[in-house]
Amino acid sequence: MENVTVLGAGSWGTALAQVLAENGHRTLVWTHREQQAKEINEQHTNEKYLPGIRLPENLVATSNLQEAVNQTNMIIVAVPTKAIREVCASMQPHLTSRKIFVHVSKGIEPDSLKRISEMLQESLSPDAIEEIVVLSGPSHAEEVVLHHPTTITAACINLDAAEKVQDLFMNNYFRVYTNDDVVGVELGGALKNVIALAAGISDGLEYGDNAKAALITRGLAEITRLGVKMGGNPFTFAGLTGMGDLIATCTSIHSRNWRAGNMLGKGMKLQEVLDQVGMVVEGVRTTKAAYQLSEKYDVPMPITTALYDILFTDKEPKVAVDELMIRMKKREIDLY
Amino acid sequence: MENVTVLGAGSWGTALAQVLAENGHRTLVWTHREQQAKEINEQHTNEKYLPGIRLPENLVATSNLQEAVNQTNMIIVAVPTKAIREVCASMQPHLTSRKIFVHVSKGIEPDSLKRISEMLQESLSPDAIEEIVVLSGPSHAEEVVLHHPTTITAACINLDAAEKVQDLFMNNYFRVYTNDDVVGVELGGALKNVIALAAGISDGLEYGDNAKAALITRGLAEITRLGVKMGGNPFTFAGLTGMGDLIATCTSIHSRNWRAGNMLGKGMKLQEVLDQVGMVVEGVRTTKAAYQLSEKYDVPMPITTALYDILFTDKEPKVAVDELMIRMKKREIDLY
Repeated sequence: MENVTVLGAGSWGTALAQVLAENGHRTLVWTHREQQAKEINEQHTNEKYLPGIRLPENLVATSNLQEAVNQTNMIIVAVPTKAIREVCASMQPHLTSRKIFVHVSKGIEPDSLKRISEMLQESLSPDAIEEIVVLSGPSHAEEVVLHHPTTITAACINLDAAEKVQDLFMNNYFRVYTNDDVVGVELGGALKNVIALAAGISDGLEYGDNAKAALITRGLAEITRLGVKMGGNPFTFAGLTGMGDLIATCTSIHSRNWRAGNMLGKGMKLQEVLDQVGMVVEGVRTTKAAYQLSEKYDVPMPITTALYDILFTDKEPKVAVDELMIRMKKREIDLY
Repeated sequence: MENVTVLGAGSWGTALAQVLAENGHRTLVWTHREQQAKEINEQHTNEKYLPGIRLPENLVATSNLQEAVNQTNMIIVAVPTKAIREVCASMQPHLTSRKIFVHVSKGIEPDSLKRISEMLQESLSPDAIEEIVVLSGPSHAEEVVLHHPTTITAACINLDAAEKVQDLFMNNYFRVYTNDDVVGVELGGALKNVIALAAGISDGLEYGDNAKAALITRGLAEITRLGVKMGGNPFTFAGLTGMGDLIATCTSIHSRNWRAGNMLGKGMKLQEVLDQVGMVVEGVRTTKAAYQLSEKYDVPMPITTALYDILFTDKEPKVAVDELMIRMKKREIDLY
């Protein structure tokens, strides 16, 4: 039994906290919203993010960040990507010993083009960090809280730390693998949101399963091309955190990125979509970052480029997708 | 404008004949059912296989096999896998010149463990064959006839023949690539039906998108392991005819194999399922062949083995799938 703190009480942070609490760990979840902490402690629910779910009674919430980080050496960082630097700055003064940080966010910082583990490394003092682990894979929170079978990967350059995280979360419905390819795991998790937006657009245009399968396949190919150039292992992109997560995200109604793309394909404007989804659509920020990475590393990424044009230069989705279909080369193997 | 004959008027044969007719080719479709030929010629429909679709008037059907094979040097073989040897034997006496045979079936012959191109080669006289081409990819007939964007691969050891087939079919909604890896294309197309059955079972058990994504990912990994050992190119399995077709098949309500698996997952027995689907469920035969191939080539294929046990040794689907989840190794990269 360990003490573990989860920072962030969105749907994924809460679902992971439930897994930990069910595994018998003393689990504390931190949220900056006092009212939400009160709801979790008194009603044992988190209705906004996991409607209809009754949380375990040994899952405790707090809105006191100092209390949250002081009780443990294992901190799960489950805040949205764009809040990470701010949360790190807030907790830094309270970090009196080295911690293992496990981040579960999927994204790339625009402009700086940093991966999440790099953002953590930059935002925290070296004295505060024992290891940084990334936990990623095909794992909709809505299914994990219902105990549906789920597989996920814990990646760290130090496999011992990844195995510690594996032991913490592993149970009969939540299977954790280890991998030492942090770059590949983080890039796969971030970039799949771009392809999920594209798949959603294709579905919004009612282009069907044939077109969507082609987009997903070629999408993974361009993610892999970039990822390998950035130092990732190609096998990682063919695994749970690459292909697996991409499939789960592109084919599930649970995916916010797919839903946002779907609305774009049906003709809504980006701002309307963001207003309607009402939660963070990580893929929109990631599309910009991915586009910048493709330029920086000189890797052709036609699907990412088409998405970028739709989101940021007001290109018609139908025109962009039709161009993609026609632009494709004639020899299949050349694509990869 | 070319003369082309399509053998078989199931949903896929008819959809391909429609593409050819729309491209302006003189297209003749052969069916052994006289009544069906009459319906296509007089009503311009094929209600049993493509309900609600009006076929082009220049698409002509015949039940005379001699007439069908004599009018052309390009024969599209779109009959079910288990009818291929019989149809070859019937047409052999009428083959007075060399033809390009394009097969579009997905399967492996049980016991002989032959791929479709090998079955054609064995069943036809060498004097009758100019080339054998395989056409495969994520392509539900129901979407092709509605002109939804579709990508597909034409593979032949002689790329000139593959390009001839590409030119024949290519139009603005039907994009054809070429590949020279016949082994990889045929195996990917056949073996994905095994994984589609497994994905259907997982869905029938209501295990959700996380579990399905894991099954599909690990399914492609075991297909690739076998395919590479049999001489296929690993890139082919990551392409349209491997990953692309696997995704389309595992996530679409159009897939008979997914539907059959879904019914098995809900507790129906194999014979009931086959009776209810009412069409050929290629994946059932292929599971047996794939299981035999994994033994012959000594490649571990845990998902295929679990399917084999469910279909042929009456194992409970829930037990088999739960065992799969638990049996998985701890280091992710070891899986591949």
